[in-house]
Amino acid sequence: MDNKGMVIVLSGFSGAGKGTIMKHLLAAYPGEYALSISATTRSPRPGEVDGREYFFKTREQFEDMIRNHELLEYASFNQNYYGTPKDYVEKLLDEGKDVILEIEVQGALQIRKIFPQALLLFVTPPSGDILKERLLGRGTEDIDVVMQRLSIASRESLLMEQYDYIIINDDIEQAVSGVHSLIESEHERVLRNTSFIRKIQKELAQFSKGETK
Amino acid sequence: MDNKGMVIVLSGFSGAGKGTIMKHLLAAYPGEYALSISATTRSPRPGEVDGREYFFKTREQFEDMIRNHELLEYASFNQNYYGTPKDYVEKLLDEGKDVILEIEVQGALQIRKIFPQALLLFVTPPSGDILKERLLGRGTEDIDVVMQRLSIASRESLLMEQYDYIIINDDIEQAVSGVHSLIESEHERVLRNTSFIRKIQKELAQFSKGETK
Repeated sequence: MDNKGMVIVLSGFSGAGKGTIMKHLLAAYPGEYALSISATTRSPRPGEVDGREYFFKTREQFEDMIRNHELLEYASFNQNYYGTPKDYVEKLLDEGKDVILEIEVQGALQIRKIFPQALLLFVTPPSGDILKERLLGRGTEDIDVVMQRLSIASRESLLMEQYDYIIINDDIEQAVSGVHSLIESEHERVLRNTSFIRKIQKELAQFSKGETK
Repeated sequence: MDNKGMVIVLSGFSGAGKGTIMKHLLAAYPGEYALSISATTRSPRPGEVDGREYFFKTREQFEDMIRNHELLEYASFNQNYYGTPKDYVEKLLDEGKDVILEIEVQGALQIRKIFPQALLLFVTPPSGDILKERLLGRGTEDIDVVMQRLSIASRESLLMEQYDYIIINDDIEQAVSGVHSLIESEHERVLRNTSFIRKIQKELAQFSKGETK
């Protein structure tokens, strides 16, 4: 098996349970997944350490990063920028770590342009009705907001075919172990084992030359 | 999840342990995999039932099947034909069963032409040296035969990139559970869930039309 880590993008409908799957996955398999650290222009809160909670940047530094394509994706929220620095993710990959990112649907597909071998997972409830129920069930949103979210989900659903796997989040424990085992299986894919394949091809070629050592 | 079964082809180097993995897989997950039944021109032995051990055919019938492309692959052995009937495999797939076939390297790649979504697994030992040791270790072959098999393996190794997954057979139990879990994961692939995706796209589209029932 090649020793390079994999970028895993957990995405899908709002209300489908991406965040819950992420939290349970990290808890169930401690040390097996690396999280990226975001860059932000917001000020550190007491106790926050640069390079631990966030990479803290000035607005000027952050906009330089945007211009220089140093971010995998970014967004602006409450007048502050938040983004995923590419070089930090690459460092983790080189260490052989699987890096997991939770990203909205549009942003997720952008990642593939930068990391063509990224694994794109789309989290969905078993049906549209159940998505609606879950969004209503939160009880914090009124019906107009829920309908707006369903309308966004409808547009996002047209992008599902561009993902690699569909994670039907019916039972959370099953979804989490499903995600973990498909990541393990993906490491056995031919395209992630090109070094191994080249090594064994070379060894076998030597035998047929009669070089039996 | 779509309800269609999957064709799984277990292939790889002679001496890599395909047969052992197959046997352990069927024993460890009883009822989860369907085996295809071969057609043959050899005579039934006492106790053998047509359609259970084999589909027994006359030479003429078998050659008709070849001509009509009714076989996934076939070979001749001891002046008798042996082959995998396509319609029987299709019947099992329609019943939602995963059909597993153990086939030599060249034949395995032929299957993809007939079933483009077949899952092709290549079983290999961890290294060329270990393959040589295993072939020698059988003790039944002399060095010339072993060198000839390694030479075939060398040619076969050039086809590894055309497979989907590499199964490194180091520890048998690990290889078997690895194969089983990658088959489970493959069922979650986007391309195997097009009916589900279309269903949820349709449901969500109705919400955004304001048809909230």
